Amino acid sequence: MRMYKYLLIVFLGINMPGAGAQQKSSPLPIKIGMAGWTFHQFSLDTTLEVLQQLDVNYLCVKDFHLPLNSTVEEMDVFREKLAKSNVIPYGVGPIYMRNEEQVDNAFAYAERLGVKLVIGVPDYELLPYVEQAVQKYDIKIAIHLHGPGSRCYPNATDIWDHVKDMDPRMGICLDVGHNLRDAQDPIEDYLKYHTRVFDIHIKDVTEATRQGHGIEFGRGLINFPKLAQALVEMNYQGVCSLEYEKDMENPFMGVAHAIGYFQGVCADGVK
Amino acid sequence: MRMYKYLLIVFLGINMPGAGAQQKSSPLPIKIGMAGWTFHQFSLDTTLEVLQQLDVNYLCVKDFHLPLNSTVEEMDVFREKLAKSNVIPYGVGPIYMRNEEQVDNAFAYAERLGVKLVIGVPDYELLPYVEQAVQKYDIKIAIHLHGPGSRCYPNATDIWDHVKDMDPRMGICLDVGHNLRDAQDPIEDYLKYHTRVFDIHIKDVTEATRQGHGIEFGRGLINFPKLAQALVEMNYQGVCSLEYEKDMENPFMGVAHAIGYFQGVCADGVK
Repeated sequence: MRMYKYLLIVFLGINMPGAGAQQKSSPLPIKIGMAGWTFHQFSLDTTLEVLQQLDVNYLCVKDFHLPLNSTVEEMDVFREKLAKSNVIPYGVGPIYMRNEEQVDNAFAYAERLGVKLVIGVPDYELLPYVEQAVQKYDIKIAIHLHGPGSRCYPNATDIWDHVKDMDPRMGICLDVGHNLRDAQDPIEDYLKYHTRVFDIHIKDVTEATRQGHGIEFGRGLINFPKLAQALVEMNYQGVCSLEYEKDMENPFMGVAHAIGYFQGVCADGVK
Repeated sequence: MRMYKYLLIVFLGINMPGAGAQQKSSPLPIKIGMAGWTFHQFSLDTTLEVLQQLDVNYLCVKDFHLPLNSTVEEMDVFREKLAKSNVIPYGVGPIYMRNEEQVDNAFAYAERLGVKLVIGVPDYELLPYVEQAVQKYDIKIAIHLHGPGSRCYPNATDIWDHVKDMDPRMGICLDVGHNLRDAQDPIEDYLKYHTRVFDIHIKDVTEATRQGHGIEFGRGLINFPKLAQALVEMNYQGVCSLEYEKDMENPFMGVAHAIGYFQGVCADGVK
């Protein structure tokens, strides 16, 4: 009987070309998400509609979609809405923190929402206080870098130098575009600092200078296939979130193109 | 002096990580285009706007954007409009041909427009007459397959069997979705029949059966990385045109996603 089954399979395999050789490609194990900032001019409903259409299941929550002072009850409603769209809130932010109260508020907000990651920009001198919050709440912080000319954290190396001797839950939100705008190689930096990279903002940019700006995926300088390879090699467990900063008043086609592009890069087939 | 230059390059290469390691990915040598049918509910202006936004430079012209009886002067205006959007009309069709007059009209239309490719669906008994037209005009025909239940040409093998002993300018428009819907492997068929594949319609479909229908790229059964690899291996010189048949009343985000996806698949970097 076993032999019969085997022969049947071979027979079907030979005679139904569609069944054997044509196999769907499977995606690389990389989580693709959305930085809430991309939709800062749009409602949560619109945002979720787009995420569903693009099969994106992770959202980094910004305060314009869920105010920092939201109650637990309001957060329940929010979470339920996301769940209906198959969207997981994986973190909050970026949140700027210029005093201790803002640090407290940020971590309490994340705890009420039930997420284990704050994407934040705390002033340098607040880092010891942030470390206490990380320990108190057992919530990681991924510090967001913002390229040349920013008040603090221009690049990944700057963050690394500040946090490397602190609690291991203090790390980096690697914005590949802003890092490149600061003439730093985002892929090399990911490989160097990967133990502390907790979040990644994907975007493409035109130039490795301050004048560099957002552009449609594939037309700028970011080498996405190489980035994807590095993430898989290091078994990156965080999310790659699209922060699309071009045409922010009508970002829909650009966002769809960018998500499609990165999904295409992550399509794991024989090339 | 030469040595000095070399040393300078080495020096810069070592000290500017952005300059050396971070290199833009270059696309695979695959032409990406648009099947005019995708925009059959929209004007040429809207179509061209979308093509520009998505950096798509090839259009297969449908009659609703340029009527079959257009004069040379009307075609000049049309071509000029496309040129302004950096779009090349690389072929016309699909054009159905049920009598000799329709064959004549199709080839005369292509000649007036100055393209060397007709995508067509001539009734089987017209094939000898089509062969004469191909020879008279020196214009290729790519016969469009339409999956199970179609009046003629359900798959690539059917077209191959009909044209393989005719003029070598008679070939196939390989619609990967419809071929798969007919339980045929589009990639295997491409490899088998590549000498006669003059045009490709890219789309994703849900099932390798008649019930299969269009879906967002990456969610169906087409293995696009494997397709891209096959095209590069065989040095495919034609165009891969998106024929997006989902949400045809509002295809914009789906089209942007699909083009992004295929561009991402074709991004040639280290994976």
